[in-house]
Amino acid sequence: MPFITFEGADGAGKTTHIQLLADHFAQQGYPVLVTREPGGTQLGNEVRALVLGKAVRPISPLAEAMLMAAARAQHVDEVLKPCLAEGRLILCDRYIDSSLVYQGVALGLGLDLVISINEPAMAGLWPDLTILLDVSPEVAYERSILGRQDADRIESRGLAYYRQVCAGYQSLAAKWPERFCVIDANRPLVVVQADVLQAVSSIL
Amino acid sequence: MPFITFEGADGAGKTTHIQLLADHFAQQGYPVLVTREPGGTQLGNEVRALVLGKAVRPISPLAEAMLMAAARAQHVDEVLKPCLAEGRLILCDRYIDSSLVYQGVALGLGLDLVISINEPAMAGLWPDLTILLDVSPEVAYERSILGRQDADRIESRGLAYYRQVCAGYQSLAAKWPERFCVIDANRPLVVVQADVLQAVSSIL
Repeated sequence: MPFITFEGADGAGKTTHIQLLADHFAQQGYPVLVTREPGGTQLGNEVRALVLGKAVRPISPLAEAMLMAAARAQHVDEVLKPCLAEGRLILCDRYIDSSLVYQGVALGLGLDLVISINEPAMAGLWPDLTILLDVSPEVAYERSILGRQDADRIESRGLAYYRQVCAGYQSLAAKWPERFCVIDANRPLVVVQADVLQAVSSIL
Repeated sequence: MPFITFEGADGAGKTTHIQLLADHFAQQGYPVLVTREPGGTQLGNEVRALVLGKAVRPISPLAEAMLMAAARAQHVDEVLKPCLAEGRLILCDRYIDSSLVYQGVALGLGLDLVISINEPAMAGLWPDLTILLDVSPEVAYERSILGRQDADRIESRGLAYYRQVCAGYQSLAAKWPERFCVIDANRPLVVVQADVLQAVSSIL
């Protein structure tokens, strides 16, 4: 069974599409695991709280990238590899590409450094397929602000930040065209979901 | 001013000797900074709580090493480099060698992997002098158990673990003889402190 990751700016609809897919494949009898980063383990949730929380002194970009990689190491070891070994279909909300975009591009660390920090954590586990839910920065920003009461640290960075994130994702998709499937997520939910379902079905 | 680190098993007396030194040099008019790892920053203290806390699912050795490195990145960037630039004498309770011994040796990750994880965090900042307070595993174990009510995760690992830690430190001192000053800390406090003071004074 493949290891599939979902990427895109906050507000792109990742959570909704993953849940729709999971329900669909579970009904068809597939053993499905839905998970997310940072999260998916106790440590991952603690790291999420650290990074997204309001610190008195801000966490440096490098420290943030390393915290995310630490949580990833635990997730790969405790959840992803065992579930792949059991033959489960894994639908993972954010993975390495989020680190590349958020810390590598938006925080300016660069892709090479973020990859090197993450290599021990991933232990060779790259996604079989990465679905990029590609929304315009304006749509992502509006959905994020409207949809959530908690304007956390990342979401409070404004539209310019969303532009960087969306452009960063597009450059990753261009870098790894075999792994990425880019889906225009500015369209209505059901239309987007049909494309997502087709992309996932094609590698099952 | 030099960057001096203090290493040794729990119970070796690092905290006591650092405080005596700090008082001595402060009285002589030196600008002194006492700090520690993990700790020394808000993030460092949060990582300390994560790693030493009782997790439902244990943190993997690799994730632990990466968390420590993340805290180190923040400490180097926020505290150590600025204080060195200000000309302060830095006395730091644990640094890279603790990661090498605890995660590299005792948890079995190996020195090379732990160094590579820490290289971005340290950004070239190796200690000018590392004082190893070298105690026998038996003494360290007894002092740790007697001295503290909280038998946290590391201290609850028993005497065999202390033997690994002490042997690990000795192997590091043999690997970097120019950087390490090994002081027999099984002796009475005042005798040990005299040697520590001499070692530090010799590089001021």
